[in-house]
Amino acid sequence: MRVFGIDCGTECTGYGVVEWNDAARNPELQWRDAGGIRLSKKDTTPQRLAQVYAELCALIALHQPDIVAIEEVFYSVNAKSALKLGQVRGVALLAAATAGLPVAEYAPLKIKSTVTGYGLAQKEQVQFMVARLLRLDVVPEPADAADALAIAICHIHHAQTLEAVRR
Amino acid sequence: MRVFGIDCGTECTGYGVVEWNDAARNPELQWRDAGGIRLSKKDTTPQRLAQVYAELCALIALHQPDIVAIEEVFYSVNAKSALKLGQVRGVALLAAATAGLPVAEYAPLKIKSTVTGYGLAQKEQVQFMVARLLRLDVVPEPADAADALAIAICHIHHAQTLEAVRR
Repeated sequence: MRVFGIDCGTECTGYGVVEWNDAARNPELQWRDAGGIRLSKKDTTPQRLAQVYAELCALIALHQPDIVAIEEVFYSVNAKSALKLGQVRGVALLAAATAGLPVAEYAPLKIKSTVTGYGLAQKEQVQFMVARLLRLDVVPEPADAADALAIAICHIHHAQTLEAVRR
Repeated sequence: MRVFGIDCGTECTGYGVVEWNDAARNPELQWRDAGGIRLSKKDTTPQRLAQVYAELCALIALHQPDIVAIEEVFYSVNAKSALKLGQVRGVALLAAATAGLPVAEYAPLKIKSTVTGYGLAQKEQVQFMVARLLRLDVVPEPADAADALAIAICHIHHAQTLEAVRR
């Protein structure tokens, strides 16, 4: 299973690709790719959204994931930030739909508690644990890339649990 | 000048195409098209966003407008609604960017006051005045289509004013 995690942001949208080989004798989480799509303040909003959409579509085409995992709606931000974040989230969901991929959504609390064991973990703790779980020598940068990897790991963890329950 | 107005909504996104022929002896506002893109509650959010995006891209390709006009961010809604509305707005802005069109944004108050003379006009008053300004026999339905036409008319009005000032 290859999962494409997306951490939407108005300045930088993180992505992270993680693989889990169910068929392997000792399956391990495998890092495939991660990074951040940084947006220029000089660009207009439509230009920025077009950049996020184009880069996500290209990355999805490159990695051929089985599913896209994304953070669930975060309600405590104010309406102005929520609308701006929603615009980015809209084109991210569209990129998944364009590729014909299903989308799994996880609440921030669930993502953090899955990866660090603590729902209110700091960004640094998430980066540290993501690096450890993926056996990386350095913590993923930017933090948005680590968050996207955490979302992908969260999906793999819950898909495994569901699969175990099903069996 | 042909303007493609969009009134974003999570259940129905209105569109309206209005033309203004500067070169004509007696230029008049001309209705070209209007309607609503209704979204099914059965569809997932990515499917709905893909539908809005595909239909807007097709309509823009059909009408070849010079500019897209859209309502400015509306701040008084709550964060949850704002995020959902933002998602639709994101793909609408992306449709404009994909077509290489500039985007003009107008505050709801300005749109209503331009069309009805009163910033806090009711939906019915907007529908009535849009029908009158475009010399339509019936009021545009759904109300979202009338709102989209009002946004397009608002842009034409302000572009004319700017042009007059420039001259």
